[in-house]
Amino acid sequence: MKIARFDDNRLGLVEGDQVKDVTAALDILPRVGYPLPLHDPLIAHLDAVCAEIRRLAPNAQALPLAGRTWLAPVANPGKIVAAPVNYQKHLDEAREQVEIHHNNQVIEIQKIGLFLKATSSLVGPSAGVAIEHLDRRNDHEAELVVIIGQGGRNISRANAMRHVAAYTSGLDMTVRGPEERSLRKSVDSYSVLGPWLVTADEIPHPDQMDFSLHVNGELRQKANTRDLILDIPHLIEFASSFYTLRTGDLLYTGTPEGVAQVHPGDVITTSFVGIGDMTVAVRSSK
Amino acid sequence: MKIARFDDNRLGLVEGDQVKDVTAALDILPRVGYPLPLHDPLIAHLDAVCAEIRRLAPNAQALPLAGRTWLAPVANPGKIVAAPVNYQKHLDEAREQVEIHHNNQVIEIQKIGLFLKATSSLVGPSAGVAIEHLDRRNDHEAELVVIIGQGGRNISRANAMRHVAAYTSGLDMTVRGPEERSLRKSVDSYSVLGPWLVTADEIPHPDQMDFSLHVNGELRQKANTRDLILDIPHLIEFASSFYTLRTGDLLYTGTPEGVAQVHPGDVITTSFVGIGDMTVAVRSSK
Repeated sequence: MKIARFDDNRLGLVEGDQVKDVTAALDILPRVGYPLPLHDPLIAHLDAVCAEIRRLAPNAQALPLAGRTWLAPVANPGKIVAAPVNYQKHLDEAREQVEIHHNNQVIEIQKIGLFLKATSSLVGPSAGVAIEHLDRRNDHEAELVVIIGQGGRNISRANAMRHVAAYTSGLDMTVRGPEERSLRKSVDSYSVLGPWLVTADEIPHPDQMDFSLHVNGELRQKANTRDLILDIPHLIEFASSFYTLRTGDLLYTGTPEGVAQVHPGDVITTSFVGIGDMTVAVRSSK
Repeated sequence: MKIARFDDNRLGLVEGDQVKDVTAALDILPRVGYPLPLHDPLIAHLDAVCAEIRRLAPNAQALPLAGRTWLAPVANPGKIVAAPVNYQKHLDEAREQVEIHHNNQVIEIQKIGLFLKATSSLVGPSAGVAIEHLDRRNDHEAELVVIIGQGGRNISRANAMRHVAAYTSGLDMTVRGPEERSLRKSVDSYSVLGPWLVTADEIPHPDQMDFSLHVNGELRQKANTRDLILDIPHLIEFASSFYTLRTGDLLYTGTPEGVAQVHPGDVITTSFVGIGDMTVAVRSSK
């Protein structure tokens, strides 16, 4: 099932070139007081929401995909975990180009581990990317994103896929410079997510997914997730050996070679087989 | 005003060696649906909660501080921002000791910037610290913590202090190793916060605060916040030049010299003038 958040916090079922408005399915989510839950409520109740969507869909209003405002399909992730240099050819290019490594040592993911992106950087595709530091290089990085279902700590590779609720695509936007990744990749709007989530049952082979990224119609990145250095089960095992993964946490799995600069006025499009296409406009934050 | 969260999500007013149970003040916080707010509800309504606390306090039950379970005074921070190597003498010791720098270059905060800690690592003092990687060096780092009130982006140093709601003390626990800080400092329980928050009006000089840390009664860290390399206004300006600071975000301001290893069975105590003392037991996570 492809589930979108769109327009004014509407919930949608995406089918073909239409989205059915099934916002009423959100009525099953509990109202809560203080302290707030530490998980994403939609993902925590995903099975029940999907059942409601199935019940509502036959009588739901169908809207064309075109013209919708697409929000991040996960509204309340507790954390955004991301994998650096997780495709060999991207590691190679990062080591070759001073504009990427910025005189920092580019270390293999097995050593450098994972990094965090601020949840305040999360946007949907329609919000676009706002470049903050125009005097620096700001790069696109297309990535498959895993949405954690059941949380856990010290999850083994063998059990890891049971903790995946859904997939979506993302842009791990990056401003180059000397700072640690958790700062440079956390600028407002630098974690794009969408255009919708796809429940895990519809993606039987996330480790064999073709995807690409174009800027203004020009191909920049083209890869297949089979070339991940650390695959999804390994990433989940690694992450959860340091911290508890909670329901709704996002895992950006890393970007392949071809990262390059974008400028205000550019339009980024990503295409992930089994998920769909995402269009993201780039502007200046000023 | 010193406001605590304790026992079973009780709210407390700390006065002397007592805490008054003013949990009913939380009744003014709104119940919310999906999507959840992106700020901490208690901090967002802090003025109104304080007014309620004042109204309730004369008739509130008073309990001794001893024997309480102290929770993190901010339950729902959107992000935890932290400053690396923000005291010159700690920078010096980090560069001298291979056990700290681990063959990574130790770069000045002006270049390396700030890092993120996972909100899943947040605990109150009574939860204690659970060491996960016993084969590595795990260090205590005592820090003054700023609690952001009014959020903002591109906040100037001149206006920064208007965005501070309160202060508390914290431990930025750290496992040494080759990984980026945002991973090594995000182990579950590695962001200790407490024992209570102190509203900003009670701390007129956060830039002149004496504090210390003992392990098993032995002095390990002793410093004054006047020795911060980047002071609080500068940290807020720097952070908000990359991302929006939201109400309830936490800013760990950095630790002075004297960081050292702790082991299961150790007891860490911090003492911040104007805030109070915090006791944190260390155990193994296994």
